[in-house]
Amino acid sequence: MTTVGFIGLGIMGGPMAANLVTAGFEVIGYNRTPAKTERLVERGGRAAGGVAEAVRDADIVATMLPDSPDVRAVLTEVFEHARPGTLVIDFSTIRPDVAAELAAEGGERGFRVLDAPVSGGEQGAIDGTLSIAVGGADRDLADAVPVLEVVGGTVVHVGPSGAGQTVKAANQLIVAGNLQLLAEAIVFLEAHGVDTNAALQVLRGGMAGSTVLERKGASMVARDFEPGFRVELHDKDMGIVTSAAREAGVVIPLGAAVAQLLAALRAQGDGGLDHSALYALVSRLSGRDV
Amino acid sequence: MTTVGFIGLGIMGGPMAANLVTAGFEVIGYNRTPAKTERLVERGGRAAGGVAEAVRDADIVATMLPDSPDVRAVLTEVFEHARPGTLVIDFSTIRPDVAAELAAEGGERGFRVLDAPVSGGEQGAIDGTLSIAVGGADRDLADAVPVLEVVGGTVVHVGPSGAGQTVKAANQLIVAGNLQLLAEAIVFLEAHGVDTNAALQVLRGGMAGSTVLERKGASMVARDFEPGFRVELHDKDMGIVTSAAREAGVVIPLGAAVAQLLAALRAQGDGGLDHSALYALVSRLSGRDV
Repeated sequence: MTTVGFIGLGIMGGPMAANLVTAGFEVIGYNRTPAKTERLVERGGRAAGGVAEAVRDADIVATMLPDSPDVRAVLTEVFEHARPGTLVIDFSTIRPDVAAELAAEGGERGFRVLDAPVSGGEQGAIDGTLSIAVGGADRDLADAVPVLEVVGGTVVHVGPSGAGQTVKAANQLIVAGNLQLLAEAIVFLEAHGVDTNAALQVLRGGMAGSTVLERKGASMVARDFEPGFRVELHDKDMGIVTSAAREAGVVIPLGAAVAQLLAALRAQGDGGLDHSALYALVSRLSGRDV
Repeated sequence: MTTVGFIGLGIMGGPMAANLVTAGFEVIGYNRTPAKTERLVERGGRAAGGVAEAVRDADIVATMLPDSPDVRAVLTEVFEHARPGTLVIDFSTIRPDVAAELAAEGGERGFRVLDAPVSGGEQGAIDGTLSIAVGGADRDLADAVPVLEVVGGTVVHVGPSGAGQTVKAANQLIVAGNLQLLAEAIVFLEAHGVDTNAALQVLRGGMAGSTVLERKGASMVARDFEPGFRVELHDKDMGIVTSAAREAGVVIPLGAAVAQLLAALRAQGDGGLDHSALYALVSRLSGRDV
Protein backbone atom coordinates (compact mmCIF):
# COMPACT_ATOMS: atom_id res chain seq x y z
CA MET A 1 0.00 0.00 0.00
CA THR A 2 1.28 3.45 -0.92
CA THR A 3 1.58 5.82 2.04
CA VAL A 4 0.88 9.53 1.51
CA GLY A 5 1.91 12.16 4.06
CA PHE A 6 -0.54 15.03 3.54
CA ILE A 7 0.27 18.44 5.04
CA GLY A 8 -2.50 21.06 5.04
CA LEU A 9 -6.08 19.85 5.48
CA GLY A 10 -8.10 23.02 4.92
CA ILE A 11 -11.00 23.71 2.55
CA MET A 12 -9.09 22.14 -0.35
CA GLY A 13 -6.58 19.75 1.28
CA GLY A 14 -9.17 18.21 3.60
CA PRO A 15 -11.40 16.67 0.92
CA MET A 16 -8.39 15.84 -1.29
CA ALA A 17 -6.79 13.78 1.51
CA ALA A 18 -10.12 12.13 2.33
CA ASN A 19 -10.56 11.12 -1.33
CA LEU A 20 -7.09 9.52 -1.27
CA VAL A 21 -8.15 7.37 1.71
CA THR A 22 -11.29 6.29 -0.15
CA ALA A 23 -9.16 5.40 -3.18
CA GLY A 24 -7.07 3.01 -1.06
CA PHE A 25 -4.04 5.09 -0.04
CA GLU A 26 -2.76 5.05 3.52
CA VAL A 27 -2.89 8.76 4.43
CA ILE A 28 -1.15 10.34 7.42
CA GLY A 29 -2.31 13.93 7.67
CA TYR A 30 -1.06 16.95 9.56
CA ASN A 31 -2.66 20.32 10.02
CA ARG A 32 -1.57 23.23 12.20
CA THR A 33 -5.16 23.52 13.48
CA PRO A 34 -5.71 19.97 14.77
CA ALA A 35 -9.53 20.03 14.45
CA LYS A 36 -9.14 19.95 10.68
CA THR A 37 -7.78 16.39 10.75
CA GLU A 38 -11.20 15.08 11.86
CA ARG A 39 -12.64 14.49 8.40
CA LEU A 40 -9.52 12.53 7.43
CA VAL A 41 -9.68 10.35 10.54
CA GLU A 42 -13.41 9.69 10.04
CA ARG A 43 -12.65 8.42 6.55
CA GLY A 44 -9.98 6.06 7.89
CA GLY A 45 -6.82 8.16 7.66
CA ARG A 46 -4.40 8.90 10.50
CA ALA A 47 -3.60 12.23 12.17
CA ALA A 48 0.04 13.07 12.86
CA GLY A 49 1.28 15.43 15.59
CA GLY A 50 3.71 17.23 13.28
CA VAL A 51 5.26 17.37 9.81
CA ALA A 52 8.07 14.98 10.76
CA GLU A 53 5.65 12.29 11.92
CA ALA A 54 3.45 12.69 8.83
CA VAL A 55 6.27 12.29 6.31
CA ARG A 56 8.72 9.88 8.01
CA ASP A 57 7.26 6.72 6.44
CA ALA A 58 5.66 8.29 3.40
CA ASP A 59 6.23 7.15 -0.19
CA ILE A 60 4.66 10.37 -1.38
CA VAL A 61 4.37 13.71 0.42
CA ALA A 62 1.55 16.07 -0.59
CA THR A 63 1.25 19.68 0.57
CA MET A 64 -1.69 22.11 0.27
CA LEU A 65 -0.74 25.33 2.05
CA PRO A 66 -1.73 29.00 1.84
CA ASP A 67 1.39 30.77 0.58
CA SER A 68 5.04 30.61 -0.54
CA PRO A 69 6.58 31.04 2.97
CA ASP A 70 4.39 28.23 4.34
CA VAL A 71 5.49 25.86 1.61
CA ARG A 72 9.13 26.84 2.07
CA ALA A 73 8.91 26.17 5.82
CA VAL A 74 7.12 22.83 5.48
CA LEU A 75 9.33 21.54 2.66
CA THR A 76 12.42 22.42 4.69
CA GLU A 77 11.07 20.06 7.39
CA VAL A 78 10.12 17.47 4.76
CA PHE A 79 13.65 17.47 3.30
CA GLU A 80 14.90 16.95 6.87
CA HIS A 81 12.62 14.08 7.88
CA ALA A 82 11.32 12.21 4.83
CA ARG A 83 13.28 9.42 3.13
CA PRO A 84 15.42 10.66 0.23
CA GLY A 85 13.87 9.59 -3.06
CA THR A 86 10.40 10.49 -1.79
CA LEU A 87 8.14 12.15 -4.33
CA VAL A 88 6.87 15.54 -3.13
CA ILE A 89 3.72 16.98 -4.77
CA ASP A 90 2.98 20.58 -3.85
CA PHE A 91 -0.65 21.38 -4.62
CA SER A 92 -0.40 24.91 -3.14
CA THR A 93 -0.52 28.08 -5.21
CA ILE A 94 2.81 29.88 -4.74
CA ARG A 95 5.30 32.00 -6.66
CA PRO A 96 6.65 30.19 -9.77
CA ASP A 97 10.23 31.21 -8.90
CA VAL A 98 9.89 29.82 -5.35
CA ALA A 99 8.49 26.56 -6.76
CA ALA A 100 11.49 26.23 -9.09
CA GLU A 101 13.93 27.01 -6.23
CA LEU A 102 12.34 24.45 -3.91
CA ALA A 103 12.40 21.79 -6.63
CA ALA A 104 16.11 22.46 -7.21
CA GLU A 105 16.85 22.45 -3.47
CA GLY A 106 14.91 19.18 -3.00
CA GLY A 107 16.67 17.68 -6.01
CA GLU A 108 20.08 18.37 -4.48
CA ARG A 109 19.00 16.44 -1.40
CA GLY A 110 17.64 13.48 -3.37
CA PHE A 111 13.96 14.43 -3.43
CA ARG A 112 11.75 14.65 -6.48
CA VAL A 113 9.49 17.70 -6.32
CA LEU A 114 6.51 18.57 -8.53
CA ASP A 115 4.50 21.79 -8.51
CA ALA A 116 0.89 20.76 -9.08
CA PRO A 117 -1.42 23.70 -8.27
CA VAL A 118 -5.11 23.01 -8.70
CA SER A 119 -8.19 24.87 -9.88
CA GLY A 120 -11.85 23.96 -9.49
CA GLY A 121 -12.65 25.23 -6.00
CA GLU A 122 -13.99 23.43 -2.97
CA GLN A 123 -16.57 21.56 -5.08
CA GLY A 124 -13.83 20.30 -7.41
CA ALA A 125 -11.82 19.13 -4.38
CA ILE A 126 -14.82 17.27 -2.95
CA ASP A 127 -15.73 15.73 -6.30
CA GLY A 128 -12.12 14.84 -7.19
CA THR A 129 -12.43 16.77 -10.46
CA LEU A 130 -9.77 19.44 -9.97
CA SER A 131 -7.85 20.79 -12.93
CA ILE A 132 -4.12 20.35 -12.24
CA ALA A 133 -1.19 22.01 -14.04
CA VAL A 134 1.98 20.05 -13.33
CA GLY A 135 5.53 21.40 -13.53
CA GLY A 136 8.51 19.05 -13.23
CA ALA A 137 10.14 15.97 -14.79
CA ASP A 138 8.15 13.51 -16.95
CA ARG A 139 9.37 10.53 -14.94
CA ASP A 140 8.27 12.05 -11.61
CA LEU A 141 4.89 12.99 -13.04
CA ALA A 142 4.41 9.36 -14.13
CA ASP A 143 4.98 8.27 -10.50
CA ALA A 144 2.53 10.92 -9.26
CA VAL A 145 -0.28 9.93 -11.62
CA PRO A 146 -2.03 7.47 -9.23
CA VAL A 147 -2.43 10.31 -6.69
CA LEU A 148 -3.21 13.03 -9.25
CA GLU A 149 -5.94 10.95 -10.87
CA VAL A 150 -7.76 10.62 -7.55
CA VAL A 151 -7.88 14.33 -6.82
CA GLY A 152 -8.02 15.64 -10.39
CA GLY A 153 -10.26 15.44 -13.45
CA THR A 154 -7.85 17.19 -15.82
CA VAL A 155 -4.12 16.63 -15.26
CA VAL A 156 -1.74 18.30 -17.72
CA HIS A 157 2.06 18.43 -17.76
CA VAL A 158 2.76 22.03 -18.74
CA GLY A 159 6.59 22.24 -18.45
CA PRO A 160 9.55 22.15 -16.07
CA SER A 161 9.49 23.05 -12.37
CA GLY A 162 7.57 26.29 -11.80
CA ALA A 163 5.54 26.01 -15.02
CA GLY A 164 2.56 24.61 -13.11
CA GLN A 165 2.58 27.74 -10.93
CA THR A 166 2.86 30.00 -13.98
CA VAL A 167 -0.27 28.40 -15.43
CA LYS A 168 -2.01 28.70 -12.06
CA ALA A 169 -1.13 32.40 -11.99
CA ALA A 170 -2.77 32.79 -15.43
CA ASN A 171 -5.77 30.89 -14.06
CA GLN A 172 -6.10 33.23 -11.07
CA LEU A 173 -5.84 36.28 -13.35
CA ILE A 174 -8.74 34.99 -15.47
CA VAL A 175 -10.87 33.86 -12.51
CA ALA A 176 -10.52 37.15 -10.60
CA GLY A 177 -11.39 39.12 -13.72
CA ASN A 178 -14.32 36.89 -14.66
CA LEU A 179 -15.72 37.28 -11.12
CA GLN A 180 -15.39 41.07 -11.21
CA LEU A 181 -17.02 41.29 -14.67
CA LEU A 182 -19.89 39.08 -13.51
CA ALA A 183 -20.31 41.28 -10.42
CA GLU A 184 -20.38 44.44 -12.58
CA ALA A 185 -22.93 42.82 -14.92
CA ILE A 186 -25.24 41.71 -12.10
CA VAL A 187 -25.19 45.11 -10.34
CA PHE A 188 -25.84 46.73 -13.74
CA LEU A 189 -28.83 44.44 -14.39
CA GLU A 190 -30.25 44.98 -10.90
CA ALA A 191 -29.90 48.75 -11.20
CA HIS A 192 -31.90 48.59 -14.45
CA GLY A 193 -34.62 46.51 -12.78
CA VAL A 194 -34.09 43.47 -15.00
CA ASP A 195 -35.06 39.97 -13.74
CA THR A 196 -31.54 38.84 -12.84
CA ASN A 197 -32.22 35.12 -12.77
CA ALA A 198 -33.76 35.23 -16.25
CA ALA A 199 -30.80 37.31 -17.42
CA LEU A 200 -28.26 34.82 -16.02
CA GLN A 201 -30.05 32.04 -17.88
CA VAL A 202 -29.60 33.83 -21.21
CA LEU A 203 -26.01 34.97 -20.43
CA ARG A 204 -25.09 31.36 -19.62
CA GLY A 205 -26.22 30.20 -23.07
CA GLY A 206 -24.25 32.75 -25.11
CA MET A 207 -20.65 33.96 -25.41
CA ALA A 208 -20.74 35.24 -21.80
CA GLY A 209 -21.00 31.71 -20.40
CA SER A 210 -18.27 30.62 -17.99
CA THR A 211 -17.53 28.33 -15.08
CA VAL A 212 -17.48 31.41 -12.84
CA LEU A 213 -21.01 32.29 -13.97
CA GLU A 214 -22.20 28.70 -13.37
CA ARG A 215 -20.63 28.47 -9.92
CA LYS A 216 -21.00 32.01 -8.58
CA GLY A 217 -23.83 33.76 -10.48
CA ALA A 218 -26.65 32.50 -8.27
CA SER A 219 -24.68 33.06 -5.04
CA MET A 220 -23.94 36.68 -6.02
CA VAL A 221 -27.65 37.25 -6.66
CA ALA A 222 -28.36 35.63 -3.26
CA ARG A 223 -25.57 37.66 -1.55
CA ASP A 224 -24.08 34.42 -0.22
CA PHE A 225 -20.35 35.00 0.30
CA GLU A 226 -19.51 31.97 2.45
CA PRO A 227 -16.06 30.67 1.38
CA GLY A 228 -15.21 28.74 -0.85
CA PHE A 229 -12.04 30.59 -1.77
CA ARG A 230 -11.21 33.54 0.41
CA VAL A 231 -10.58 37.07 -0.84
CA GLU A 232 -7.31 37.22 1.15
CA LEU A 233 -5.96 34.16 -0.73
CA HIS A 234 -6.98 35.50 -4.13
CA ASP A 235 -5.43 38.84 -3.17
CA LYS A 236 -2.20 36.96 -2.37
CA ASP A 237 -2.43 35.19 -5.75
CA MET A 238 -2.84 38.51 -7.58
CA GLY A 239 0.42 39.58 -5.96
CA ILE A 240 2.02 36.54 -7.60
CA VAL A 241 0.37 37.34 -10.94
CA THR A 242 1.34 41.00 -11.05
CA SER A 243 4.92 40.35 -10.01
CA ALA A 244 5.35 37.45 -12.47
CA ALA A 245 3.88 39.64 -15.24
CA ARG A 246 6.25 42.47 -14.37
CA GLU A 247 9.25 40.10 -14.43
CA ALA A 248 8.27 38.90 -17.91
CA GLY A 249 7.59 42.45 -19.13
CA VAL A 250 3.93 41.72 -19.81
CA VAL A 251 1.34 44.50 -19.44
CA ILE A 252 -1.95 43.26 -17.92
CA PRO A 253 -4.36 46.20 -17.65
CA LEU A 254 -7.40 44.23 -16.43
CA GLY A 255 -5.31 41.93 -14.24
CA ALA A 256 -3.75 44.93 -12.52
CA ALA A 257 -7.14 46.60 -12.06
CA VAL A 258 -8.80 43.54 -10.53
CA ALA A 259 -5.78 43.06 -8.25
CA GLN A 260 -6.49 46.55 -6.89
CA LEU A 261 -10.17 45.74 -6.45
CA LEU A 262 -9.41 42.55 -4.50
CA ALA A 263 -6.94 44.54 -2.40
CA ALA A 264 -9.68 47.11 -1.71
CA LEU A 265 -12.13 44.41 -0.70
CA ARG A 266 -9.59 42.97 1.72
CA ALA A 267 -8.67 46.42 3.07
CA GLN A 268 -12.36 47.04 3.75
CA GLY A 269 -12.41 44.03 6.07
CA ASP A 270 -13.82 41.38 3.73
CA GLY A 271 -10.68 39.23 3.38
CA GLY A 272 -12.40 36.25 4.95
CA LEU A 273 -15.35 36.20 2.52
CA ASP A 274 -15.55 34.20 -0.69
CA HIS A 275 -13.95 35.97 -3.68
CA SER A 276 -17.45 36.33 -5.19
CA ALA A 277 -17.80 39.15 -2.63
CA LEU A 278 -16.42 41.37 -5.42
CA TYR A 279 -20.17 41.76 -5.99
CA ALA A 280 -20.38 43.56 -2.62
CA LEU A 281 -17.50 45.84 -3.62
CA VAL A 282 -19.17 46.85 -6.90
CA SER A 283 -22.43 47.47 -5.01
CA ARG A 284 -20.69 49.70 -2.46
CA LEU A 285 -18.73 51.54 -5.19
CA SER A 286 -22.10 52.23 -6.81
CA GLY A 287 -23.66 53.44 -3.54
CA ARG A 288 -26.04 50.50 -3.40
CA ASP A 289 -26.99 48.35 -0.40
CA VAL A 290 -25.62 44.82 -0.44
CA MET B 1 -47.12 29.89 -44.77
CA THR B 2 -45.73 32.64 -42.55
CA THR B 3 -43.82 35.32 -44.46
CA VAL B 4 -40.79 36.95 -42.82
CA GLY B 5 -39.29 40.18 -44.14
CA PHE B 6 -35.65 40.06 -43.03
CA ILE B 7 -33.58 43.27 -43.15
CA GLY B 8 -29.80 42.95 -42.68
CA LEU B 9 -28.13 39.82 -44.04
CA GLY B 10 -24.56 40.18 -42.74
CA ILE B 11 -22.41 37.74 -40.75
CA MET B 12 -25.27 37.12 -38.30
CA GLY B 13 -28.44 37.98 -40.24
CA GLY B 14 -27.40 35.97 -43.32
CA PRO B 15 -27.34 32.53 -41.69
CA MET B 16 -30.34 33.38 -39.45
CA ALA B 17 -32.49 34.19 -42.51
CA ALA B 18 -31.22 31.10 -44.34
CA ASN B 19 -32.17 28.90 -41.36
CA LEU B 20 -35.69 30.38 -41.43
CA VAL B 21 -36.04 29.32 -45.09
CA THR B 22 -34.89 25.80 -44.20
CA ALA B 23 -37.45 25.71 -41.37
CA GLY B 24 -40.27 26.42 -43.83
CA PHE B 25 -40.76 30.19 -43.62
CA GLU B 26 -41.15 32.29 -46.75
CA VAL B 27 -38.31 34.80 -46.36
CA ILE B 28 -37.96 38.03 -48.31
CA GLY B 29 -34.59 39.55 -47.52
CA TYR B 30 -33.06 42.93 -48.05
CA ASN B 31 -29.48 44.08 -47.56
CA ARG B 32 -27.88 47.40 -48.45
CA THR B 33 -24.99 45.48 -50.09
CA PRO B 34 -26.96 43.33 -52.57
CA ALA B 35 -24.29 40.57 -52.83
CA LYS B 36 -25.17 39.50 -49.30
CA THR B 37 -28.62 38.28 -50.38
CA GLU B 38 -27.00 35.43 -52.38
CA ARG B 39 -26.94 32.87 -49.57
CA LEU B 40 -30.62 33.51 -48.86
CA VAL B 41 -31.60 33.11 -52.51
CA GLU B 42 -29.54 29.90 -52.84
CA ARG B 43 -31.48 28.44 -49.92
CA GLY B 44 -34.79 29.31 -51.57
CA GLY B 45 -35.52 32.78 -50.16
CA ARG B 46 -36.28 35.91 -52.18
CA ALA B 47 -34.23 39.11 -52.47
CA ALA B 48 -36.05 42.44 -52.27
CA GLY B 49 -34.88 45.71 -53.81
CA GLY B 50 -35.59 47.75 -50.68
CA VAL B 51 -37.09 47.75 -47.19
CA ALA B 52 -40.58 48.58 -48.45
CA GLU B 53 -40.63 45.60 -50.83
CA ALA B 54 -39.28 43.23 -48.13
CA VAL B 55 -41.90 44.11 -45.52
CA ARG B 56 -45.02 44.94 -47.53
CA ASP B 57 -46.49 41.40 -47.40
CA ALA B 58 -44.72 40.18 -44.27
CA ASP B 59 -46.44 38.66 -41.24
CA ILE B 60 -43.25 39.15 -39.25
CA VAL B 61 -40.43 41.63 -39.83
CA ALA B 62 -36.96 40.76 -38.53
CA THR B 63 -34.04 43.20 -38.42
CA MET B 64 -30.35 42.54 -37.77
CA LEU B 65 -28.46 45.81 -38.19
CA PRO B 66 -25.22 47.34 -36.90
CA ASP B 67 -26.30 50.21 -34.65
CA SER B 68 -29.10 52.28 -33.11
CA PRO B 69 -29.37 54.83 -35.99
CA ASP B 70 -29.62 52.01 -38.56
CA VAL B 71 -32.46 50.38 -36.64
CA ARG B 72 -34.22 53.72 -36.20
CA ALA B 73 -33.99 54.45 -39.95
CA VAL B 74 -35.15 50.98 -41.04
CA LEU B 75 -38.02 50.77 -38.52
CA THR B 76 -39.24 54.20 -39.65
CA GLU B 77 -39.56 52.69 -43.15
CA VAL B 78 -41.14 49.52 -41.74
CA PHE B 79 -43.80 51.50 -39.86
CA GLU B 80 -44.50 53.29 -43.16
CA HIS B 81 -44.80 50.25 -45.41
CA ALA B 82 -45.67 47.12 -43.40
CA ARG B 83 -49.21 46.16 -42.48
CA PRO B 84 -50.29 47.47 -39.05
CA GLY B 85 -50.43 44.59 -36.57
CA THR B 86 -47.22 43.12 -37.98
CA LEU B 87 -44.84 41.69 -35.39
CA VAL B 88 -41.39 43.32 -35.55
CA ILE B 89 -38.44 41.45 -34.02
CA ASP B 90 -35.25 43.48 -33.76
CA PHE B 91 -32.27 41.14 -33.31
CA SER B 92 -29.75 44.03 -33.45
CA THR B 93 -27.71 45.21 -30.47
CA ILE B 94 -28.71 48.82 -29.79
CA ARG B 95 -29.23 51.24 -26.92
CA PRO B 96 -31.88 50.01 -24.45
CA ASP B 97 -33.51 53.47 -24.37
CA VAL B 98 -33.74 53.57 -28.19
CA ALA B 99 -35.26 50.07 -28.19
CA ALA B 100 -37.91 51.18 -25.69
CA GLU B 101 -38.65 54.35 -27.71
CA LEU B 102 -39.03 52.46 -30.98
CA ALA B 103 -41.33 49.90 -29.34
CA ALA B 104 -43.51 52.74 -28.01
CA GLU B 105 -43.50 54.52 -31.39
CA GLY B 106 -44.39 51.30 -33.23
CA GLY B 107 -47.11 50.58 -30.67
CA GLU B 108 -48.74 53.95 -31.35
CA ARG B 109 -48.92 53.03 -35.04
CA GLY B 110 -50.36 49.58 -34.41
CA PHE B 111 -47.15 47.54 -34.59
CA ARG B 112 -45.90 45.05 -31.99
CA VAL B 113 -42.16 45.42 -31.47
CA LEU B 114 -39.80 43.10 -29.56
CA ASP B 115 -36.13 43.69 -28.79
CA ALA B 116 -34.42 40.33 -29.14
CA PRO B 117 -30.64 40.79 -29.25
CA VAL B 118 -28.62 37.62 -29.66
CA SER B 119 -25.35 36.21 -28.39
CA GLY B 120 -23.39 33.20 -29.60
CA GLY B 121 -21.44 34.60 -32.52
CA GLU B 122 -21.32 33.58 -36.17
CA GLN B 123 -21.18 29.88 -35.23
CA GLY B 124 -24.30 30.22 -33.08
CA ALA B 125 -26.08 31.96 -35.98
CA ILE B 126 -25.11 29.19 -38.41
CA ASP B 127 -26.06 26.43 -35.96
CA GLY B 128 -29.32 28.12 -34.87
CA THR B 129 -28.22 27.98 -31.23
CA LEU B 130 -28.12 31.69 -30.39
CA SER B 131 -28.90 32.86 -26.89
CA ILE B 132 -31.70 35.46 -27.11
CA ALA B 133 -32.82 37.93 -24.44
CA VAL B 134 -36.30 39.20 -25.29
CA GLY B 135 -37.84 42.46 -24.11
CA GLY B 136 -41.52 43.21 -24.74
CA ALA B 137 -45.05 41.92 -24.10
CA ASP B 138 -45.74 38.26 -23.22
CA ARG B 139 -48.37 37.94 -25.93
CA ASP B 140 -46.06 39.24 -28.66
CA LEU B 141 -43.26 36.95 -27.52
CA ALA B 142 -45.65 33.98 -27.81
CA ASP B 143 -46.30 34.93 -31.45
CA ALA B 144 -42.54 35.29 -32.09
CA VAL B 145 -41.63 31.88 -30.65
CA PRO B 146 -41.80 29.95 -33.96
CA VAL B 147 -39.15 32.29 -35.42
CA LEU B 148 -37.06 32.56 -32.22
CA GLU B 149 -36.88 28.79 -31.85
CA VAL B 150 -35.37 28.43 -35.32
CA VAL B 151 -32.54 30.90 -34.76
CA GLY B 152 -32.05 30.40 -31.01
CA GLY B 153 -31.10 27.65 -28.58
CA THR B 154 -31.88 29.64 -25.43
CA VAL B 155 -34.78 32.11 -25.57
CA VAL B 156 -35.61 33.98 -22.36
CA HIS B 157 -38.17 36.72 -21.71
CA VAL B 158 -36.25 39.14 -19.47
CA GLY B 159 -38.69 42.03 -19.10
CA PRO B 160 -40.49 44.90 -20.90
CA SER B 161 -39.26 46.69 -24.05
CA GLY B 162 -35.57 47.53 -23.76
CA ALA B 163 -34.81 44.82 -21.16
CA GLY B 164 -33.46 42.50 -23.84
CA GLN B 165 -30.96 45.22 -24.81
CA THR B 166 -29.99 45.78 -21.17
CA VAL B 167 -29.16 42.08 -20.84
CA LYS B 168 -27.25 42.18 -24.11
CA ALA B 169 -25.23 45.13 -22.81
CA ALA B 170 -24.32 43.04 -19.73
CA ASN B 171 -23.38 40.22 -22.09
CA GLN B 172 -21.07 42.47 -24.12
CA LEU B 173 -19.44 43.76 -20.94
CA ILE B 174 -18.65 40.21 -19.82
CA VAL B 175 -17.52 39.02 -23.26
CA ALA B 176 -15.16 41.96 -23.88
CA GLY B 177 -13.63 41.51 -20.43
CA ASN B 178 -13.31 37.74 -20.75
CA LEU B 179 -11.55 38.20 -24.10
CA GLN B 180 -9.13 40.76 -22.68
CA LEU B 181 -8.34 38.57 -19.65
CA LEU B 182 -7.72 35.57 -21.89
CA ALA B 183 -5.44 37.70 -24.07
CA GLU B 184 -3.48 38.87 -21.00
CA ALA B 185 -3.19 35.27 -19.76
CA ILE B 186 -1.95 33.93 -23.09
CA VAL B 187 0.66 36.66 -23.58
CA PHE B 188 1.76 36.07 -19.95
CA LEU B 189 2.13 32.30 -20.57
CA GLU B 190 4.00 32.83 -23.83
CA ALA B 191 6.38 35.32 -22.22
CA HIS B 192 7.17 32.70 -19.55
CA GLY B 193 7.82 30.06 -22.21
CA VAL B 194 4.99 27.78 -21.11
CA ASP B 195 3.40 25.36 -23.60
CA THR B 196 0.29 27.44 -24.32
CA ASN B 197 -1.86 24.66 -25.74
CA ALA B 198 -1.22 22.46 -22.69
CA ALA B 199 -1.98 25.45 -20.47
CA LEU B 200 -5.28 26.16 -22.25
CA GLN B 201 -6.27 22.54 -21.74
CA VAL B 202 -5.84 22.83 -17.97
CA LEU B 203 -7.40 26.34 -17.78
CA ARG B 204 -10.46 25.02 -19.64
CA GLY B 205 -11.01 22.33 -16.99
CA GLY B 206 -10.87 24.62 -13.93
CA MET B 207 -12.56 27.78 -12.71
CA ALA B 208 -11.07 29.75 -15.64
CA GLY B 209 -13.16 27.85 -18.18
CA SER B 210 -15.47 29.91 -20.40
CA THR B 211 -17.18 29.99 -23.75
CA VAL B 212 -14.71 32.71 -24.78
CA LEU B 213 -11.80 30.38 -23.95
CA GLU B 214 -13.42 27.52 -25.91
CA ARG B 215 -14.16 29.65 -28.97
CA LYS B 216 -11.21 32.06 -29.04
CA GLY B 217 -8.28 30.51 -27.11
CA ALA B 218 -6.90 28.49 -30.01
CA SER B 219 -7.39 31.32 -32.52
CA MET B 220 -5.50 33.78 -30.27
CA VAL B 221 -2.61 31.29 -30.03
CA ALA B 222 -2.75 30.94 -33.84
CA ARG B 223 -3.02 34.75 -34.31
CA ASP B 224 -6.14 34.25 -36.43
CA PHE B 225 -8.25 37.41 -36.16
CA GLU B 226 -10.64 36.85 -39.07
CA PRO B 227 -14.13 38.10 -38.02
CA GLY B 228 -16.35 36.75 -36.44
CA PHE B 229 -17.44 39.80 -34.53
CA ARG B 230 -15.62 42.97 -35.43
CA VAL B 231 -13.75 45.20 -32.97
CA GLU B 232 -15.62 48.26 -34.28
CA LEU B 233 -18.99 46.68 -33.38
CA HIS B 234 -17.85 45.63 -29.91
CA ASP B 235 -16.43 49.14 -29.43
CA LYS B 236 -19.88 50.51 -30.34
CA ASP B 237 -21.46 48.10 -27.84
CA MET B 238 -19.11 49.25 -25.07
CA GLY B 239 -20.37 52.77 -25.73
CA ILE B 240 -23.88 51.43 -25.01
CA VAL B 241 -22.66 49.64 -21.87
CA THR B 242 -20.77 52.56 -20.39
CA SER B 243 -23.56 55.04 -21.04
CA ALA B 244 -26.26 52.68 -19.68
CA ALA B 245 -24.10 52.07 -16.58
CA ARG B 246 -23.64 55.80 -16.07
CA GLU B 247 -27.39 56.41 -16.38
CA ALA B 248 -28.06 53.78 -13.70
CA GLY B 249 -25.27 55.11 -11.46
CA VAL B 250 -23.35 51.82 -11.63
CA VAL B 251 -19.54 51.86 -11.41
CA ILE B 252 -17.92 49.30 -13.74
CA PRO B 253 -14.13 49.52 -13.33
CA LEU B 254 -13.23 46.57 -15.59
CA GLY B 255 -15.96 47.37 -18.08
CA ALA B 256 -14.69 50.93 -18.42
CA ALA B 257 -11.09 49.73 -18.79
CA VAL B 258 -11.85 47.19 -21.51
CA ALA B 259 -13.96 49.80 -23.33
CA GLN B 260 -10.81 51.93 -23.51
CA LEU B 261 -8.75 48.97 -24.74
CA LEU B 262 -11.24 48.19 -27.53
CA ALA B 263 -11.24 51.89 -28.44
CA ALA B 264 -7.43 51.79 -28.60
CA LEU B 265 -7.47 48.71 -30.82
CA ARG B 266 -9.90 50.44 -33.18
CA ALA B 267 -7.92 53.69 -33.13
CA GLN B 268 -4.82 51.73 -34.09
CA GLY B 269 -6.55 50.59 -37.30
CA ASP B 270 -7.80 47.15 -36.23
CA GLY B 271 -11.53 47.90 -36.16
CA GLY B 272 -12.20 45.37 -38.92
CA LEU B 273 -10.54 42.44 -37.09
CA ASP B 274 -12.29 39.96 -34.81
CA HIS B 275 -12.59 41.17 -31.19
CA SER B 276 -10.14 38.42 -30.19
CA ALA B 277 -7.51 40.80 -31.67
CA LEU B 278 -7.34 42.20 -28.11
CA TYR B 279 -4.54 39.62 -28.01
CA ALA B 280 -2.63 41.73 -30.55
CA LEU B 281 -3.17 44.84 -28.42
CA VAL B 282 -1.78 43.17 -25.28
CA SER B 283 1.20 41.92 -27.28
CA ARG B 284 1.94 45.39 -28.65
CA LEU B 285 1.47 46.99 -25.20
CA SER B 286 4.06 44.48 -23.96
CA GLY B 287 6.49 45.24 -26.82
CA ARG B 288 6.06 41.80 -28.31
CA ASP B 289 5.64 40.81 -31.97
CA VAL B 290 2.20 39.55 -32.94
